[in-house]
Amino acid sequence: MKTEGLAETLSRVHGESKAAAARGRVATYIPALAKADPGAFGLALVDSTGSVFEAGDARARFTIQSISKVLALAYVMTELGEVAVFSRVGKEPTGDPFNSIIRLETSASRKPFNPLINAGAIVVSGLMPGSSPADKGERFRAFVGRLLGRGGVERDEAVYASEKATAARNRSIAWFLKELGILEGEVEDTLDVYFRQCAVSVDAVDLARVGAVLCMDGMDPVRRERVIAARTARVCKSLMVTCGMYDGSGEFAVDVGVPAKSGVGGGILASVRDRMGIGVYGPALDERGNSAAGLEALRRLSDELDLRVL
Amino acid sequence: MKTEGLAETLSRVHGESKAAAARGRVATYIPALAKADPGAFGLALVDSTGSVFEAGDARARFTIQSISKVLALAYVMTELGEVAVFSRVGKEPTGDPFNSIIRLETSASRKPFNPLINAGAIVVSGLMPGSSPADKGERFRAFVGRLLGRGGVERDEAVYASEKATAARNRSIAWFLKELGILEGEVEDTLDVYFRQCAVSVDAVDLARVGAVLCMDGMDPVRRERVIAARTARVCKSLMVTCGMYDGSGEFAVDVGVPAKSGVGGGILASVRDRMGIGVYGPALDERGNSAAGLEALRRLSDELDLRVL
Amino acid sequence: MKTEGLAETLSRVHGESKAAAARGRVATYIPALAKADPGAFGLALVDSTGSVFEAGDARARFTIQSISKVLALAYVMTELGEVAVFSRVGKEPTGDPFNSIIRLETSASRKPFNPLINAGAIVVSGLMPGSSPADKGERFRAFVGRLLGRGGVERDEAVYASEKATAARNRSIAWFLKELGILEGEVEDTLDVYFRQCAVSVDAVDLARVGAVLCMDGMDPVRRERVIAARTARVCKSLMVTCGMYDGSGEFAVDVGVPAKSGVGGGILASVRDRMGIGVYGPALDERGNSAAGLEALRRLSDELDLRVL
Amino acid sequence: MKTEGLAETLSRVHGESKAAAARGRVATYIPALAKADPGAFGLALVDSTGSVFEAGDARARFTIQSISKVLALAYVMTELGEVAVFSRVGKEPTGDPFNSIIRLETSASRKPFNPLINAGAIVVSGLMPGSSPADKGERFRAFVGRLLGRGGVERDEAVYASEKATAARNRSIAWFLKELGILEGEVEDTLDVYFRQCAVSVDAVDLARVGAVLCMDGMDPVRRERVIAARTARVCKSLMVTCGMYDGSGEFAVDVGVPAKSGVGGGILASVRDRMGIGVYGPALDERGNSAAGLEALRRLSDELDLRVL
Repeated sequence: MKTEGLAETLSRVHGESKAAAARGRVATYIPALAKADPGAFGLALVDSTGSVFEAGDARARFTIQSISKVLALAYVMTELGEVAVFSRVGKEPTGDPFNSIIRLETSASRKPFNPLINAGAIVVSGLMPGSSPADKGERFRAFVGRLLGRGGVERDEAVYASEKATAARNRSIAWFLKELGILEGEVEDTLDVYFRQCAVSVDAVDLARVGAVLCMDGMDPVRRERVIAARTARVCKSLMVTCGMYDGSGEFAVDVGVPAKSGVGGGILASVRDRMGIGVYGPALDERGNSAAGLEALRRLSDELDLRVL
Repeated sequence: MKTEGLAETLSRVHGESKAAAARGRVATYIPALAKADPGAFGLALVDSTGSVFEAGDARARFTIQSISKVLALAYVMTELGEVAVFSRVGKEPTGDPFNSIIRLETSASRKPFNPLINAGAIVVSGLMPGSSPADKGERFRAFVGRLLGRGGVERDEAVYASEKATAARNRSIAWFLKELGILEGEVEDTLDVYFRQCAVSVDAVDLARVGAVLCMDGMDPVRRERVIAARTARVCKSLMVTCGMYDGSGEFAVDVGVPAKSGVGGGILASVRDRMGIGVYGPALDERGNSAAGLEALRRLSDELDLRVL
Repeated sequence: MKTEGLAETLSRVHGESKAAAARGRVATYIPALAKADPGAFGLALVDSTGSVFEAGDARARFTIQSISKVLALAYVMTELGEVAVFSRVGKEPTGDPFNSIIRLETSASRKPFNPLINAGAIVVSGLMPGSSPADKGERFRAFVGRLLGRGGVERDEAVYASEKATAARNRSIAWFLKELGILEGEVEDTLDVYFRQCAVSVDAVDLARVGAVLCMDGMDPVRRERVIAARTARVCKSLMVTCGMYDGSGEFAVDVGVPAKSGVGGGILASVRDRMGIGVYGPALDERGNSAAGLEALRRLSDELDLRVL
Repeated sequence: MKTEGLAETLSRVHGESKAAAARGRVATYIPALAKADPGAFGLALVDSTGSVFEAGDARARFTIQSISKVLALAYVMTELGEVAVFSRVGKEPTGDPFNSIIRLETSASRKPFNPLINAGAIVVSGLMPGSSPADKGERFRAFVGRLLGRGGVERDEAVYASEKATAARNRSIAWFLKELGILEGEVEDTLDVYFRQCAVSVDAVDLARVGAVLCMDGMDPVRRERVIAARTARVCKSLMVTCGMYDGSGEFAVDVGVPAKSGVGGGILASVRDRMGIGVYGPALDERGNSAAGLEALRRLSDELDLRVL
């Protein structure tokens, strides 16, 4: 496949998928998200040679939200090692909603099923090193900056403040984790770290770049240097394929067939073994919380470029 | 990678993995399974050119058990189409045990999460065409025979009779499905079909052959002809990657990274996109019900042959 | 309170409560029940001296249904003793629906919460002595006959056959109990006993008579002789007060405040310590499965006669 | 029954039941409770004429803990009416543990099953009138003082501080209630009120006095004046009989047969319609959290004085 072809395909698929945004709705649980333009739609692709392709609103900024769960996992695995993380959280998919608390009470293991549901992600946030929530958040952003090959990444302060003010369910989950003895630090501090990580501001090109790093098992194809360990990249991709797309993970595996993670801000991060990372921005979400136009685009790209790894 | 290399690698990995059987135990819930030799261990590999490689007890016969769920799904999708199947069963992974009934009562959709847990598999069995359980079972075996490129496959009558006599939990599940209105036909008849399909007798080479068909998206690399539709193969592999290895599916995705399905008879079927199918026989099971030596071998093969698709 | 007063009160309350039947609907899950006259309404009262009072359709026959769970418990406790019964079933209320299966899978004790939900009642049916389902059913009817001071009681064959033909949920429950190892005998045989006991035909006077026996801790106030042990009567009444009125048991305790058990056939059995038994027939049921007019009448009788024991 | 008889019976039962404390253990989840003397044991009885009887440590002080749930319910019903309370919490028993959160997620009604489990009690605490947690706590204590016919009641500051510092599970529950929209006010403020009410200091005579008020449907038999509405008293007693003794409520109904509520501080409050209130203090708890010696004493008193209302 020629480079020209990729750019054209991306552009065409962008055009063909744009209308699917009308099937979705922007998240409204906090005002800062509700302000997003439902018609916004951007695609980006970074291939294994480090070439970058873009279509539409690929440079529009949005908050990373749940996609941060993958980056936080990679970060904490890098800092503390796999064992420290997975003694507190499992690696298995669950049929429960992302914000469910029920399994913490009923499952025998009494640890969250995986790091991509809220309970597991909060456990991971609690493991981040640092002297304070602000320090932990800053270090995490520095890690993301290194991953993206740029000096730093910003945080959307309005989203951060808004999530922090309204997260009753996450507070319930975090206190339950505290009760179970698997949450490090103070509950409010750990939640603060979690809200900070979710409010990191990215664009579709950033997500494609992360996807490219993952697809090369931790090597950045742009700078041609290792940024995370191969094992860390594999753990992230494995969890993405089984649990990355909320209650639609199984259907996504069938329809698209690549590891991916979505966020309520409208982003999707996808990674195709040895070939490419893909970043999506489309804030109009389907009923499961995944970007409607983004799903359409990934389905089409998977078919046209034969991306499926399964 | 040369053909010679594959044979040698398979043989070496077989030798290195054999001892892991000591970590497992043969299933004992029915006498017919308890008689298996815990030290038995066979590996087989069919590559994309149709070449077959074997090591150890690759021709030893065992019952296919839960691996039949994948074949039954492929069969029913072939006969009735995807929509007919997935209107009655979902495509999503679940954190519940394979024989759980709880979600049928509590989930909003009131359909089994996926066709690889017992509840979903029984729904699939209920969809098989035929005039009687015996006829349905025979037609299914004919389908498996076509898939394997041989005249027919046998059924282990002792296992069939034994499972039919003891399956209280599956009867409970089937009656619950009946109550929900998603089970076709008479409950006992459908269970009879299910027990028949689980008792089909195969060897590791057979499983590798199926894996090879799936890896080529439905083309049999030996006879070089299509045996199932590409979409059907993809659905099977997607479900295998998210739900194929019982409660260890997530960990398997991390450690091995390929679609696979195990059975309590000791078999594992694995499929590596574009490259190969792998079949395993090792009846000593770990605490999750997966072949202990088989898991060890697949981990090693994945590392040595760089098999992971994630 | 004079005898004349009781008769008049009963008659007046009957008149005042009759209209409440319009708020209910006759059960329709089997044709034999759907034929009931929704406007039918009878009340009966047997006081501690053995005097009998009636109003309306107090001699209309209907199937005892879930009220049989109390009689079956009394019977099996009489035959086998308390320990034999309660080693297999608990004494605790549950917030689950009467036909729920979920707690059998999730609760630590793995036995049904109490004998007044279906799972517990089926366990009790499994304990009945006899050489066959028919024999067990006959012996149970003989026990009910003794309790009612008459030669025998009949069974509604149409209801029995109809329930037997349609009870998918109860079959699911019974097989689950079998799997747990707490169900005696063959599943279908035990269910047959259960369907037989539910189809016993009674009238409101019968239920009042049973209530009177329970209110006198096992002494029949009519014949002035003991028919069941005091402890047995107390166990029955205790379970009735915590679990007798389906999902409305707590509200009934608040509003009426006496032990009672309802059935989907429209009956209610109530028992007021030292004072009286009350029988109700009113087949129009509220959304929880309790006789709508019956509830109204019991609320009024409780207020007017100061019946509440709480 | 003569007054002399009651005093003697109480004294004798106290002696006979004292040894049962050895079967229990003092609660240790906070240091302030762990300091209790496991051998301490007091009984008190207030009859319908207002006569008071005591045996053993009937004047020893302890924290009221979960028994406050009954008083808080009476208080809030008095202040706001039944409808305001029961639009936010149910009246039904549940088979779940007192500190369970699972039903909030899975039940259709999305309100706590009853006011005697923690979730329901926290909702009730949130309804207390006042300008601040301290003010609300003070007003509640004033209500308890009125109920007890004395100027005021104290709070155990060490217990209050200790519970406030350690209640991760209750915080999890409260945040979940907040998410559901059924918790009034700020979460931490409401929990503060809840911890304040649980730390109210009483003795067995106090509990007997409350039980006597409830047994007379709200009339204080000592001062011969109404202190709470009859309906309020009945609601409290009804909930006590179905849900008052944690996971042992059903068995207690069988064995003792009167409305009662226990607390982890070792107290039990019991109320016998028209006859008496009983107060117990015995901090050695059985595995369900009920006073071991207290249960023994109540079983014996029920038999000897024929207390059971069921």
